[in-house]
Amino acid sequence: MFVKKKKVEMAGPSGKKEKVAKAGPSGGGGKKKKDVKKETGLGLSVKKDENFGEWYSEVCKHEMIEYYDISGCYILRPWSMAIWEIMQTFFDAEIKKMKVKNCYFPLFVSPGVLEKEKDHIEGFAPEVAWVTKSGKSDLEVPIAIRPTSETVMYPYYSKWIRGHRDLPLKLNQWCNVVRWEFSNPTPFIRSREFLWQEGHTAFASKEEADKEVLEILELYRRIYEEYLAVPVVKGMKSENEKFAGGLYTTSVEAFIPNTGRGVQGATSHCLGQNFAKMFEINFENEKGETEMVWQNSWAYSTRTIGVMIMTHGDDKGLILPPKVASVQVVVIPVPYKDANTQGIFDACTATVAALSEAGIRWKYSNWEMKGVPLRIEIGPRDLENDQVRTVRRDNGVKEDIPRGSLVEHVKELLEKIQANMYEVAKQKREACVEEIKTWDEFIVALNKKKLILAPWCDEEEVERDVKARTKGETGAAKTLCSPFEQPELPEGTLCFASGKPAKKWTYWGRSY
Amino acid sequence: MFVKKKKVEMAGPSGKKEKVAKAGPSGGGGKKKKDVKKETGLGLSVKKDENFGEWYSEVCKHEMIEYYDISGCYILRPWSMAIWEIMQTFFDAEIKKMKVKNCYFPLFVSPGVLEKEKDHIEGFAPEVAWVTKSGKSDLEVPIAIRPTSETVMYPYYSKWIRGHRDLPLKLNQWCNVVRWEFSNPTPFIRSREFLWQEGHTAFASKEEADKEVLEILELYRRIYEEYLAVPVVKGMKSENEKFAGGLYTTSVEAFIPNTGRGVQGATSHCLGQNFAKMFEINFENEKGETEMVWQNSWAYSTRTIGVMIMTHGDDKGLILPPKVASVQVVVIPVPYKDANTQGIFDACTATVAALSEAGIRWKYSNWEMKGVPLRIEIGPRDLENDQVRTVRRDNGVKEDIPRGSLVEHVKELLEKIQANMYEVAKQKREACVEEIKTWDEFIVALNKKKLILAPWCDEEEVERDVKARTKGETGAAKTLCSPFEQPELPEGTLCFASGKPAKKWTYWGRSY
Repeated sequence: MFVKKKKVEMAGPSGKKEKVAKAGPSGGGGKKKKDVKKETGLGLSVKKDENFGEWYSEVCKHEMIEYYDISGCYILRPWSMAIWEIMQTFFDAEIKKMKVKNCYFPLFVSPGVLEKEKDHIEGFAPEVAWVTKSGKSDLEVPIAIRPTSETVMYPYYSKWIRGHRDLPLKLNQWCNVVRWEFSNPTPFIRSREFLWQEGHTAFASKEEADKEVLEILELYRRIYEEYLAVPVVKGMKSENEKFAGGLYTTSVEAFIPNTGRGVQGATSHCLGQNFAKMFEINFENEKGETEMVWQNSWAYSTRTIGVMIMTHGDDKGLILPPKVASVQVVVIPVPYKDANTQGIFDACTATVAALSEAGIRWKYSNWEMKGVPLRIEIGPRDLENDQVRTVRRDNGVKEDIPRGSLVEHVKELLEKIQANMYEVAKQKREACVEEIKTWDEFIVALNKKKLILAPWCDEEEVERDVKARTKGETGAAKTLCSPFEQPELPEGTLCFASGKPAKKWTYWGRSY
Repeated sequence: MFVKKKKVEMAGPSGKKEKVAKAGPSGGGGKKKKDVKKETGLGLSVKKDENFGEWYSEVCKHEMIEYYDISGCYILRPWSMAIWEIMQTFFDAEIKKMKVKNCYFPLFVSPGVLEKEKDHIEGFAPEVAWVTKSGKSDLEVPIAIRPTSETVMYPYYSKWIRGHRDLPLKLNQWCNVVRWEFSNPTPFIRSREFLWQEGHTAFASKEEADKEVLEILELYRRIYEEYLAVPVVKGMKSENEKFAGGLYTTSVEAFIPNTGRGVQGATSHCLGQNFAKMFEINFENEKGETEMVWQNSWAYSTRTIGVMIMTHGDDKGLILPPKVASVQVVVIPVPYKDANTQGIFDACTATVAALSEAGIRWKYSNWEMKGVPLRIEIGPRDLENDQVRTVRRDNGVKEDIPRGSLVEHVKELLEKIQANMYEVAKQKREACVEEIKTWDEFIVALNKKKLILAPWCDEEEVERDVKARTKGETGAAKTLCSPFEQPELPEGTLCFASGKPAKKWTYWGRSY
């Protein structure tokens, strides 16, 4: 069902006046206390097209995020946490259907275990946070905080897996991880601590592992496209960009037209047998022979929310896709002097009651900035005509609908909004795609902030070279992914960068 | 509904043989690999009454916990995580009805903020873990890992709360916390990292705060008594034992007869206005005057699972209350030679299908040790009589029930098991309670591992004195709580310890 309980809220009629005068935190005023930037409460102070970075930060601050006194750490407020919970509910149920079970492994890793897989630790080492003291005492050995849990978990996989009957082993955990990055912390997109799920599975055969990689990737696509209304490309990461220590990495890639940057949405890795070798994860097959397991790991994080904000927000603030909005409709009484005020209020109350049996709350809130998908206004004229006025947040379209068919109309509208948000985002993304053949075209497209589809020889050395040659103020270009859906590659096509025969089409661009 | 999907599993007929021979991790064998203690797979190696500590550790290791290579940290395996998830689902829904919203605050605290409330930090300082390095670089300032989040959150409460319309503010988070304890790590009961929820609320009046403290405490009672079938006492903690920096602490207290120790089950604190003062959490009331808020915080943790294991387990292993058991019924084919084997298997399959539409899995599992509440056996005689044999895990009672009314009977049985487990645990607890009047009686009762109810003058000095005088090998006695339900206290009753006039009845004992 699309309209859920507690998803309808009622706004106060004098909201505007209150907002400016009282300067509550949701009103965005805040002249009274220290550290709070002056905001008008009537809109954002910058435009999305003019200063994207500032705009993003400002939108996030509208009850999605609170900046924290430790750089790179952010508070997830209920307005964003509710979105995370909705995605969790979907994904958790789906993986449970696949017989994945939840568990919880410790936050801490001992150095010996962390450093067991060389490529893996090289990828993470610079970002690892170390605990060296408790109370006033130094620890005997410093202890790391997990940046991801492969090395935390796999010694125990080695212990638990003995025979083919113990396979597949499919575990998942919902937890926090820490990567102490120093460059450009950005709420949701790049933070020192973030929330995610990490799935870790072990199979008897590569075929089973390969299959699961794509099943999980499809769930990630659905989170982006069906829930967040954000179009993504499914594809394969290059050797340079794959998960450190793994065999291959698939991903869903989103694109932010305003900045011309790709953003890795979520990754599903086949680890092959590399970790199995390092951690001695063996099993006895049906013939009594010892074999190594095949492993996958896969994760998506609160980064999803950042991609959604960047994709849909406008100069008025956030726009939430109905499926993930914790409030889907705001009902607003619009009284005029001499009008039947009581009648309007009664109609509002009845409207709220009809849409939902719970959660009626008078809210002096900036619902537009907070992105509530649908607004319902009820004024004197509406009362006369036994109708309500709906205003869509995504495109501003107004429509009068009879009160008799309120619920059906609202459900239909929310579905239309969800579909439209996806369509609009997809069209914008499509408009950014540029197919190129030569280095010169590549550079032109890159400077035009395009999502570049180029024929590539698939050599690591060439990707490193492209990175080096494009290093500039706005960051080097790299491969985003090679889409599973490949356009035709005519024989004789050459790599745009090396001039060698091209092996595949690959997306290139700058990235978050 | 009591029988849920996926809560019925089917065991393999040759389970026993396989278990011993193949030594899978669930079989408990484990002769093949290093570090794994030899276990018979046919029961526990120690008895609950003989060596409680060893017994507890062994029961936990049967797929609830895996010991980790960092002391005091444990892996929560799916068998225990599923219990945590069931409690989460219940509690999360209940607090959402109370309009509490979920959020997420960072794991890290800067030292300045952590140390702002003096009593509070004194209580936690020795156990705080400090991050001092990232990668190979020293941090400019060491950063603490949250032992609890009062000081993490309240600077932002100060920012968000302006006027009376911003109140009440009710936030909760599900997260991990770290307390680097050095004494006696015990799975679930005392670990360096654990999972919990922490609720933090702010109100305009003390009355509202007081009311919520008890509402939350009632939810904690329900978790223990209705879900975990563990009887608890609701009451007030003494001044010595209350939350550091708070006004008063209420708790639910459980008691472990085998060790004669109380265990604090969960706490609901009224913080009064102390933190409000330190963190300047003020609001403008309806008259335009500035007031301080009244605050509560409340938490329960994975410790709940440990108390459940200690309370119900027996010499065969774990006994799970049906309400929190991720598998509620195991169906076991019992074939004999010459019997209608296929018929037995068909009957088992039909039984599983009748009880649940999902989750049929052949499991060579030690269901008894893992505590599955109900076992169903089907052998040749059952087939003849169109019946199944049920065997209760809690009391071993066997009953033949007609296949025609299988589902109703099983539902009824699970409800009976749940009720019986609570009753048995309650009777055992009651048998430990001893009302005493004098110091001599107190010492005798303490040595008999009793839960001691004593008249007390309620003076901090006296409690400290009792602690000092009982300090011995098994730990000092202290107050557990003063029960809300007070027996009559005749005028002239004297404190058992000080001889001064008694003010209340209080539970005393050693504790975890």
